[in-house]
Amino acid sequence: MNIKSEDLQKQLNFIHEVDKVKYIYRKTKLFHSERNENDAEHSWHLAVMALILSGHANEPIDLLKVIQMLLIHDIVEIDSGDIFLYSSEVSHTNTDSERKAAQRIFGLLAESQTNELISIWEEFEAGETAEAKFARAMDRLEPLLQNVSNGGGTWKEFGIKHGQVIQKKSIIANGSTTLWDLAKSLIDDAAANGLLDV
Amino acid sequence: MNIKSEDLQKQLNFIHEVDKVKYIYRKTKLFHSERNENDAEHSWHLAVMALILSGHANEPIDLLKVIQMLLIHDIVEIDSGDIFLYSSEVSHTNTDSERKAAQRIFGLLAESQTNELISIWEEFEAGETAEAKFARAMDRLEPLLQNVSNGGGTWKEFGIKHGQVIQKKSIIANGSTTLWDLAKSLIDDAAANGLLDV
Repeated sequence: MNIKSEDLQKQLNFIHEVDKVKYIYRKTKLFHSERNENDAEHSWHLAVMALILSGHANEPIDLLKVIQMLLIHDIVEIDSGDIFLYSSEVSHTNTDSERKAAQRIFGLLAESQTNELISIWEEFEAGETAEAKFARAMDRLEPLLQNVSNGGGTWKEFGIKHGQVIQKKSIIANGSTTLWDLAKSLIDDAAANGLLDV
Repeated sequence: MNIKSEDLQKQLNFIHEVDKVKYIYRKTKLFHSERNENDAEHSWHLAVMALILSGHANEPIDLLKVIQMLLIHDIVEIDSGDIFLYSSEVSHTNTDSERKAAQRIFGLLAESQTNELISIWEEFEAGETAEAKFARAMDRLEPLLQNVSNGGGTWKEFGIKHGQVIQKKSIIANGSTTLWDLAKSLIDDAAANGLLDV
């Protein structure tokens, strides 16, 4: 196998490793479904959403960057696991274990690609650039749509209240005020219809 | 819900509809696994592969276009189902049922987005542009890697022979001669090691 360069072998190792993302199940379920969604399906759906919804971004965005963020944002969960958005025990973002996971998993690649992917992942986590704000809006919008389709979904299951949802989802507005208007309306309707406790 | 524009409502309908991609199971299995892969997981993995492997493309490529192709290429299977690459009964590409599916599913969106996505899907199917050639190389490479990791996988299961695999996989060379050299070497090794009948 001497035709494989060292970098290509590292890329193959990474491609194998990230297959594990398909075994990480989220709390939220597929639309109108009892089946939990895994992180690969979730990442694919967010990337498709970004492709379709990019016209609603508040600012001009580099769509390739947004989609790169969404494709790789949950790879760290191979090591650190899925953290529920409303968990009171564990901080959802920027934990030490996620940083270590990023170093290990993106570190399977050659140095320049490692650095590029860690940089994209950190930009997403920081949520400060136009691209990160829009990508994070996608990440908050999908489970909201899923919960509405599932009669309240994780909101009902874990006793989450209207105010908590508004607080966690309001960062959608940083990426798109249009999508936040939609999300706010869906959340208020969910409360009015008993899918979410006030 | 008067804050939703008509176009946004169509986008939401599309986002709901494509959730069905997560229920379409392929013949191939996850790496080192007995579990079949679904089309959402497959599409996510191909997009990540394109992101990682784009430096091996034969020609300069628009990576966003490649990733768009990979994210949406199997959405038509919601209506037309997964066709096994080595099926002798059904042509794998450009069937009438796939074209009808593209019209129906991408047609859920407003006209300009419908036309854009059908155009991207048709470009992928035609396989003539640099982007389509590279995207199709990803689509052929992933199941090859999976079969190697699974002791022959679908090759063993369906009695596929070395010559058939070489024939079907050789289009990888149109996108990347480096990746075809790798693929050819893996296929030859598989035959030498009894994972694939000669």
